[in-house]
Amino acid sequence: MAETDQALPLSDQLAAMNLTDTVEKHAFSDRVLIRSIVGRPDGGAGLAGQRVRAGGWVKTGREQGKGTFAFLELNDGSCPASLQVIVDAGLAVLSKLVATGTCVVVDGILKVPPEGTRQKIELRVEKVVSVGEVDPAKYPIPKTKLTLEFLRDHLHLRARTNTIAAIARIRNALAFATHSFFQEHNFLYVHTPILTTSDCEGAGEMFQVTTLISESEKLEKELIKNPPPSEVDIEAARQVVSERGEAVKQLKAAKASKSEITASVAELNKAKENLSKLEERSKLKPGIPKKDGKIDYTQDFFARQAFLTVSGQLQVETYACAVSNVYTFGPTFRAEHSHTSRHLAEFWMVEPEIAFADLQDDMNCAEAYVKYMCNWLLDRCLDDMLFMAKSYDKGCIDRLRMVASIPFVRISYTEAVELLEEAVRGGKKFENEVKWGIDLASEHERYLTEVKFQKPVIVYNYPKGIKAFYMRLNDDLKTVAAMDVLVPKVGELIGGSQREERYEVIRERILEVGLPLEPYEWYLDLRRYGTVKHCGFGLGFERMILFATGIENIRDVIPFPRYPGRADL
Amino acid sequence: MAETDQALPLSDQLAAMNLTDTVEKHAFSDRVLIRSIVGRPDGGAGLAGQRVRAGGWVKTGREQGKGTFAFLELNDGSCPASLQVIVDAGLAVLSKLVATGTCVVVDGILKVPPEGTRQKIELRVEKVVSVGEVDPAKYPIPKTKLTLEFLRDHLHLRARTNTIAAIARIRNALAFATHSFFQEHNFLYVHTPILTTSDCEGAGEMFQVTTLISESEKLEKELIKNPPPSEVDIEAARQVVSERGEAVKQLKAAKASKSEITASVAELNKAKENLSKLEERSKLKPGIPKKDGKIDYTQDFFARQAFLTVSGQLQVETYACAVSNVYTFGPTFRAEHSHTSRHLAEFWMVEPEIAFADLQDDMNCAEAYVKYMCNWLLDRCLDDMLFMAKSYDKGCIDRLRMVASIPFVRISYTEAVELLEEAVRGGKKFENEVKWGIDLASEHERYLTEVKFQKPVIVYNYPKGIKAFYMRLNDDLKTVAAMDVLVPKVGELIGGSQREERYEVIRERILEVGLPLEPYEWYLDLRRYGTVKHCGFGLGFERMILFATGIENIRDVIPFPRYPGRADL
Repeated sequence: MAETDQALPLSDQLAAMNLTDTVEKHAFSDRVLIRSIVGRPDGGAGLAGQRVRAGGWVKTGREQGKGTFAFLELNDGSCPASLQVIVDAGLAVLSKLVATGTCVVVDGILKVPPEGTRQKIELRVEKVVSVGEVDPAKYPIPKTKLTLEFLRDHLHLRARTNTIAAIARIRNALAFATHSFFQEHNFLYVHTPILTTSDCEGAGEMFQVTTLISESEKLEKELIKNPPPSEVDIEAARQVVSERGEAVKQLKAAKASKSEITASVAELNKAKENLSKLEERSKLKPGIPKKDGKIDYTQDFFARQAFLTVSGQLQVETYACAVSNVYTFGPTFRAEHSHTSRHLAEFWMVEPEIAFADLQDDMNCAEAYVKYMCNWLLDRCLDDMLFMAKSYDKGCIDRLRMVASIPFVRISYTEAVELLEEAVRGGKKFENEVKWGIDLASEHERYLTEVKFQKPVIVYNYPKGIKAFYMRLNDDLKTVAAMDVLVPKVGELIGGSQREERYEVIRERILEVGLPLEPYEWYLDLRRYGTVKHCGFGLGFERMILFATGIENIRDVIPFPRYPGRADL
Repeated sequence: MAETDQALPLSDQLAAMNLTDTVEKHAFSDRVLIRSIVGRPDGGAGLAGQRVRAGGWVKTGREQGKGTFAFLELNDGSCPASLQVIVDAGLAVLSKLVATGTCVVVDGILKVPPEGTRQKIELRVEKVVSVGEVDPAKYPIPKTKLTLEFLRDHLHLRARTNTIAAIARIRNALAFATHSFFQEHNFLYVHTPILTTSDCEGAGEMFQVTTLISESEKLEKELIKNPPPSEVDIEAARQVVSERGEAVKQLKAAKASKSEITASVAELNKAKENLSKLEERSKLKPGIPKKDGKIDYTQDFFARQAFLTVSGQLQVETYACAVSNVYTFGPTFRAEHSHTSRHLAEFWMVEPEIAFADLQDDMNCAEAYVKYMCNWLLDRCLDDMLFMAKSYDKGCIDRLRMVASIPFVRISYTEAVELLEEAVRGGKKFENEVKWGIDLASEHERYLTEVKFQKPVIVYNYPKGIKAFYMRLNDDLKTVAAMDVLVPKVGELIGGSQREERYEVIRERILEVGLPLEPYEWYLDLRRYGTVKHCGFGLGFERMILFATGIENIRDVIPFPRYPGRADL
């Protein structure tokens, strides 16, 4: 068979592999993507003989043959693999090419390397087009093994490492998978606001957004440069007004000429204007404007207090109750002083909302979405997943396969508590007490998904006392139609619910949990007018990446992590 | 021919139209999408005889035949068209169904209506499953023609109108087109931060993000409830410490038992602890913490001043200089007191960044991207575009076709100024003077794209004096490699540039424009280590929607507009 294959012309062999024998140039650049060479199933072998321009950063480089040539491993971020490049000494000063991090653009010809090498193809350079040098003595992220923690202090360079680049590709894949999933299922992407004046039922501490401080600092600077008038200044200006008034009076009494009187009146008006300007300025006070002892937010940018959103759910519901199927995918914020490996002050959430749908539909959607993402990574990011498996988490690919194929377990909260109590009776120790009515702690969730079932678990129908007012009250009047999706490695990945669509019931619930009605009148309007059964959930996007990659710290799976005390760049 | 067609079985006729004769149920709901019926090329006629469940909101409804049945136009937001529904009086109280805005779920059978009606199919109801009523006397957005301005005061309900729903679908389409375009071209989607401590070269006024105010308000409340100790309280506590200290001394001197001494020492320690707590509390001062007369930002959440981003460009460049092709698509913010129809305080931007690419590549990418979006709308949103053409802007579809098919004009800034000067000589009046060195005003841009060329125009190589420091200095040392894409209807749609990749040159430019070097050291690092030729641009996403739809005010093309004095919901 092998002989027959050999006998086939190269183009036919490639066609059988669904490959062409020309390298695709990047659409908006004169170079090729390195992935389009080394990312092929044949490792690039079928491209031997092609002339290409390649550009990238040197992963490792070394001079060989007593300085007569250099080997460079060139990577452009398009895939985990690098292209082996060979440069002869006559083409460039080799010592300037070999430092890790050097940017190199070269023209050359692709050749099959001698047998026994790992590479299926290498690039023999004919011309060095450009070099962005690196002084290895100063480069902050040299070739030596760097910890993820160390890299967090070099956010602007860390994407040049294999790990952070692989995470970037996986994150990109999951984001596009998210859009593809919801678009395929006829959901509209709705941009909910980042700046909000609604407090989503106190979901957490909020960041305040304001221009009052900068405005007051501006004023302060201005008043230092140009101090406000003193009482003496104002008195003097008043004096001038009265003198000029007197002058006008005298001219009139003396029956002076019209032009004389006009000129005098003009002088008087000028003096009056000056006085009122001074009086106005004398009222300016440094500091944040106050009224009745409180900050005067009517002078803030939005004429009221504004915050960064903690969730787009309430707002996206207004669209679900109009165009049926929607989702939002954007940044959300919590001003909590959590220094854990699971919390960020700025993180991304995916929040679909479905009209004409109940808790079962919600669970079906959540399960289908998670499975879709797992399949997407297996189909399109396997090279990056293999890197993660090799470097961080041996089991990550098996985990994706398992979640993609196995139906999620679905148990009620009451059943979940029973299982946990059973475990306690069997000798399992939890830090947090288990009894009906508690909010499940992370240790409980991990036990259910990692130990008890060893697969994803959806827990539904939680006690109303531990859940938000907008979740639909069940007929038992004790539980609400909420659901959490728990997965191995991270625990809670998704939280959702059917929303309370009955006006009287939700109004009662708002009062019951001690919230004022007024700020929720617009939300109540959705139930007052043409109310609809609907549901939705939120997925913490970074948690999904932790789940997929096995990375331990959430600060490493977002390009620019924000947490207490740190917001670099 | 018609007869032959009639003779074909229905299934074959449908196959010829690429249609099936079953209605697709929504994946996560028990109803069908109304679009899957009335959005078919045959208007739904091929589905006659099918039993379906449909849900939606009544656009218009009326009782007919002396109250024996009702016609409802039912819309679920999946397309601009509604489904005609006929309900007999025996099935429900008809008066409760017909009000605009009522939510109705019905089971029924699809039938071809009598000849002479506009509809190709209608739903004969067999069962009314549920109704979300509307009191038409109270409904804030009744059927009467409502202005877009009026609707801005009812953000939570306005998506139920034909216009805002059509804009939502167009916005969704453009967002997914954006992702699809960049993914197809091997760009990675990078989430740049919303919270930033970098000021993107003073691109505009920034919103400050802080927890200092809420923390100080919390403290203030606490101090009112629980006032700080007075000097007298502290003196008293000191007295206790000294007494207890004396007591310990005496017991020791008296050689008391070990247990007596231990107990006495414990008492002393308790008193000391109490004193230090009081002293600590006495230092608490209401108000924002200050140090040396300035606000002490080390006590703010991020231990420094933080802002909302005005652009993700500088941060996304760190990824371009590592993984080559990236884009960011997210919200950006300007705290400017602009009350125009073209400015928002919160708006979405698309910012690609391409390594190994120059200004030509940048223009090619921008042009391809805009054309791709136009084609996407023509291919997938034609029904919504027809609605916009009918209701708002007759020319909008032709404009999309023109932009999708015609090569963009490309002229240098110098040529642009010459053309404008020529126009002035020809009698054209501009409010802003035209001469080399000015920043082109909106009227100039509109003249070039709408009058002079009547097609998209890319102007490139602007004077360095009016552009940002990071744009690449041309060899003439007078201009920079910047480019703006101007389109009819909105003027500037895109602004971009090749970035200055030469360390010495960009360092000089930062100093030249009067900026400090220190905050840009990380940005300079990208040029110090492995620098690469690169370029990018920013597209104002809402401007693209204005361009596509012909809507006049930017506040109507974003779901939740934020502008001075307003941030509803």
